[in-house]
Amino acid sequence: MSSKIRIGIAGYGNLGRGVQAAISKNQDMELVGVYSRRDPQSLELAQPAARYSVDDLAKHVDDIDVLILCGGSKSDLPEQGPQLAALFNTVDSFDTHARIPEYYESVDAPAKAAGKTALISAGWDPGMFSINRVYGEALLPDGETYTFWGRGLSQGHSDAVRRVPGVAAGVQYTIPSQEAIEQVRAGLRPSLSTREKHQRECFVVLENGADENNVRQEIVSMEHYFDQYDTTVHFVDAQTLATEHSDMPHGGFVIRSGNTSDSQKQVIEYSLALGSNPEFTSSVLVAYARAVHRMNRAGITGAQTVFDVAPGLLSPRSAAQLRADML
Amino acid sequence: MSSKIRIGIAGYGNLGRGVQAAISKNQDMELVGVYSRRDPQSLELAQPAARYSVDDLAKHVDDIDVLILCGGSKSDLPEQGPQLAALFNTVDSFDTHARIPEYYESVDAPAKAAGKTALISAGWDPGMFSINRVYGEALLPDGETYTFWGRGLSQGHSDAVRRVPGVAAGVQYTIPSQEAIEQVRAGLRPSLSTREKHQRECFVVLENGADENNVRQEIVSMEHYFDQYDTTVHFVDAQTLATEHSDMPHGGFVIRSGNTSDSQKQVIEYSLALGSNPEFTSSVLVAYARAVHRMNRAGITGAQTVFDVAPGLLSPRSAAQLRADML
Repeated sequence: MSSKIRIGIAGYGNLGRGVQAAISKNQDMELVGVYSRRDPQSLELAQPAARYSVDDLAKHVDDIDVLILCGGSKSDLPEQGPQLAALFNTVDSFDTHARIPEYYESVDAPAKAAGKTALISAGWDPGMFSINRVYGEALLPDGETYTFWGRGLSQGHSDAVRRVPGVAAGVQYTIPSQEAIEQVRAGLRPSLSTREKHQRECFVVLENGADENNVRQEIVSMEHYFDQYDTTVHFVDAQTLATEHSDMPHGGFVIRSGNTSDSQKQVIEYSLALGSNPEFTSSVLVAYARAVHRMNRAGITGAQTVFDVAPGLLSPRSAAQLRADML
Repeated sequence: MSSKIRIGIAGYGNLGRGVQAAISKNQDMELVGVYSRRDPQSLELAQPAARYSVDDLAKHVDDIDVLILCGGSKSDLPEQGPQLAALFNTVDSFDTHARIPEYYESVDAPAKAAGKTALISAGWDPGMFSINRVYGEALLPDGETYTFWGRGLSQGHSDAVRRVPGVAAGVQYTIPSQEAIEQVRAGLRPSLSTREKHQRECFVVLENGADENNVRQEIVSMEHYFDQYDTTVHFVDAQTLATEHSDMPHGGFVIRSGNTSDSQKQVIEYSLALGSNPEFTSSVLVAYARAVHRMNRAGITGAQTVFDVAPGLLSPRSAAQLRADML
């Protein structure tokens, strides 16, 4: 019997690919296989691994310690999360903030009934940013929390741009306001409007015959997505888009600014500068798979969030090693 | 019976004063009293509270949910920690890094025997910085962790300066190298010598007749404390020292830089800019008192560190509230 933590990957898009890369960076883990709804033989893996159909999962319940769900939050996870939590310990990155309580309940019941542990909504936001919002508020109860995103590629906003008539291709970057960040860092606890916190920048390839001004106007006035922001639209050719805008960088800042007494200000800042958003999210999922494996062995079952996981459970080091080397 | 968490403070120096201020910022807590080795009636409290002798503690075991130990790591805590963990749930800021494993054992046995929970070594380093070192390493296993301290007043180095013959008074600031930080932020994973990471700056009041050059030479060549650093010594008068150098600011940076694949770099940064080092440390102790109270009620006893405490336990919000509002 293997002493490594045996991981399965359900879904092989950007996240699944990132999870495969992250497993190879963790010596105490091994990849059992990639499970896809596509024909497994058609999957082109970044590194060699066993390829299976998702229909094979039920036959592999004894071979997998933790299954990492790499599907999307819109349609994949609401269906797969509850189903697979009845068979496996799971980790996912469900990120529709408003629906988290409902998703939590839907996963908690089957996981508890099966004695499994299901960690939902891991990643960086929700995930590491959420943890830092909680730490910040608890440590400085008299204070304000600010979250800034970017500079980074937003998938949702890029999709919105691409739906505009006349747009052949395009991407959108979210840009945090440096001025707003400096006010927050200075402990001024400013009130900031949506427009004052972030700007948006689009790089768009037009369809033949489309009009720049019409397309720009459609984008900048789009409700919810762009109308509350200052948005810049750049028109580029397909070649430029492919060479200069194919990476998926992202990141941001969670800043808590507060007072511990009338005269003393304190500022806590957590920031991420990510070369690849999906690869970092995947790394987080893999670290939480280690924690989930341990929690399940300790009898902690049902749905869990990053708020429920002690930091030491993420580390391959023992508690005694952590105390000696990391405290 | 009170529904608030009932806190006792053992020791009333800078930390004890900070804990008293922090309790007043947390609506779910109340201060039972301040316990001192000094004559309680001689204690001048920043805010009104009951004053007791430490000898009264044993009589108050039923009145206190968590006792926060505000003594020093050199002589107070090694003695008080094990003794008081046999009577109370405790939180302390034991910060002699090299002796933490030994201190942990000395507290763990009496706490376990008494069914009490003892959280050791809370604060920011050890404490929040330690947590971020563990998260960083777990999320980016192929990477390097860098800790920078400052700009801030170092108590230990200030004490060392004041022991130099000819020095009437003085303080020492630790200053992180901006150049080194920028290299780390850029994901270059540099090898940095002690001298390249921090500089030291001293403000010194001379005794009558003392020689500037002699004193400067004594300071900058002092083994361990200064000889491995570039140190600047400024001579000031007593008035300037009192007006410009009586605050206790501190802070620093924990940066993890790593690769999730050959082509992708990721950087995680946690930083603190603290107006008052002792007040922030105190705020951390108070938040962990809430966690200790909950852990003890859940049957988790013995010595604990910040690595063992799930983030959600620090928050006054319920787990369901946290999921709905903070994830």
